[in-house]
Amino acid sequence: MNIAVVGVGLVGGSIGLAARERLGATVRGVDPRGDQAVARGAVDSAHDDLASALEGADAAFVAVPVDGLLDTVRAVLDAAPPGCAVTDVGSTKGAVARSCRDPRFVGGHPLAGAEVSGVEHARADLFDDATWYLTPAPDAQGVVLERLHRLLSGLGARPVVIDAEAHDRLMAAVSHLPHVLANVLVARAAGALGDERVPATGPSFRDATRVAGANPPLWNGIYAANAPALGDELDGAIAALAAVRDDLRSGADLTGWQQQAAQDRAALLSALAAGPVRELRALVPNRPGVVAEIALALSDAGINISDMALSPSAGGERGEIAVSVPEARAEEAAALVVELGFGVDL
Amino acid sequence: MNIAVVGVGLVGGSIGLAARERLGATVRGVDPRGDQAVARGAVDSAHDDLASALEGADAAFVAVPVDGLLDTVRAVLDAAPPGCAVTDVGSTKGAVARSCRDPRFVGGHPLAGAEVSGVEHARADLFDDATWYLTPAPDAQGVVLERLHRLLSGLGARPVVIDAEAHDRLMAAVSHLPHVLANVLVARAAGALGDERVPATGPSFRDATRVAGANPPLWNGIYAANAPALGDELDGAIAALAAVRDDLRSGADLTGWQQQAAQDRAALLSALAAGPVRELRALVPNRPGVVAEIALALSDAGINISDMALSPSAGGERGEIAVSVPEARAEEAAALVVELGFGVDL
Repeated sequence: MNIAVVGVGLVGGSIGLAARERLGATVRGVDPRGDQAVARGAVDSAHDDLASALEGADAAFVAVPVDGLLDTVRAVLDAAPPGCAVTDVGSTKGAVARSCRDPRFVGGHPLAGAEVSGVEHARADLFDDATWYLTPAPDAQGVVLERLHRLLSGLGARPVVIDAEAHDRLMAAVSHLPHVLANVLVARAAGALGDERVPATGPSFRDATRVAGANPPLWNGIYAANAPALGDELDGAIAALAAVRDDLRSGADLTGWQQQAAQDRAALLSALAAGPVRELRALVPNRPGVVAEIALALSDAGINISDMALSPSAGGERGEIAVSVPEARAEEAAALVVELGFGVDL
Repeated sequence: MNIAVVGVGLVGGSIGLAARERLGATVRGVDPRGDQAVARGAVDSAHDDLASALEGADAAFVAVPVDGLLDTVRAVLDAAPPGCAVTDVGSTKGAVARSCRDPRFVGGHPLAGAEVSGVEHARADLFDDATWYLTPAPDAQGVVLERLHRLLSGLGARPVVIDAEAHDRLMAAVSHLPHVLANVLVARAAGALGDERVPATGPSFRDATRVAGANPPLWNGIYAANAPALGDELDGAIAALAAVRDDLRSGADLTGWQQQAAQDRAALLSALAAGPVRELRALVPNRPGVVAEIALALSDAGINISDMALSPSAGGERGEIAVSVPEARAEEAAALVVELGFGVDL
């Protein structure tokens, strides 16, 4: 199989490494630093022009930065042979779907590798177990979609087919909106606190603001790339907040609203962990060793911790630890924590 | 010292236990289940009427549920002797400050004990290290404030004096608003996902929604009790979200906004952990033992983990672990994690 990778950085380089190692593919790279990609083993050969890289290619991956993406996809489609499957790895899919209509093109988005960049960080296992969205237009060739689907599975990923606009809305809801809300929360808290210290108020504030201010240039680009869908999500969030505010001011009961959130969260969390999970909370002294002690006791019993958060109290002497474990093992996990001398809320 | 506790549940009972054990005080309790409080050792004697409980009292704590709070504080002020300091433990302070104006009254709010209730869970160390707000009106007697301040320190808490309205705004910003936003996020995600599974998108969604749907009846009460301040915070959050949405749609650069959030978060987190912290992130196989291994390596080196979060990938085979450690030990902590064979972003 012949594969062309246009843009051989972290993602493109990892595609090349995995395709060579796992699929025995011949990989041709197009990149200003192509020699480095060859040296890294990410591609078999480096090319300066699309024509020679795409000659006889079965599939082409466009993995260039977002600002050159649309032009590059179009150029690749121009140069690609009739039967070649062309895809990209951009984090939003609506714009590329609208501007690159071709039966050989299916947009893609692997959920992997946002924090570091460069072919020197490329790894053959970057996509293992990662969701990789494929967003075929209605007129995409079935054989192209099928080939890409098989190819992504071969790279170790879990391909998921989804409409391009639905993809962008989903990313806006589960990734971009949380980042915007985290930023708003720290701004409100900074405004409310003035010179006060943040009191220890349980895990809500820490957890809700964990991603506030993440990598500013990167996230400015992510927001901008998904501006239409994120704008719609912001409209939706604003409407929801206004409804809660109005209910609050009219004295309406919010118990049902809070219950609905609990149900939604449980459903979403269960899906995320690929099985129902349950959260244990324990009050523990905040000293080195406590987290290890609890985690070790659970791991010794073969109980996997899918999520964990520790919230210190104001002076740092005590804290609450929350661990998510498989529901079927929750009672057993709680008993183990109690055995260590800590009180548990199940 | 004579102390009266009106309402002897988790908080009132813990006040009684700590006052008896640590201050050698005589504690009189007023509660329908006063006998149980005596049996628990939380009070020396149970009283059916305020008059006998408050006779000669130096201080009185009102720790009844929020719906009877204002009436009970007024009744206690009527029955209390001239020199008696009267306080309450309600979670909002504006309403009680406005309706219970008396030089002997100073509102209070300990940040402790929200999840369980009942005198059977009372503990002498419930307030150790906990922030306990005191909200004196401008005409509060200095001697009353001073006595309460000393008393709270004696119970193990860290008293913090703050204006009642500022207190309510602060709680709205750092506790109540995060809960509302978490609920909105799960509702948006549930809407965007339909029957899709939640993809593994890094820690943002899990962390931001950790408190979504927490204890519905309890939180309905908390929202309602702080409705004015929370309504104002919601107005502020809505305005901030609308500004971001407008910037997005006009194509404005959001890098500076993202940077400001990073600065605010760093400042708020440093205050919370009582010292600068730094977050390490490592990609690890998601199996029992990994968390323990990392936590143990850090604890063996005496490096305290003030916060930890593990985000699984879609299939649960790998995950990203984020740990916050003292800034001064961050390099050393990273080296230890690398030694275990995991890549670290510092």
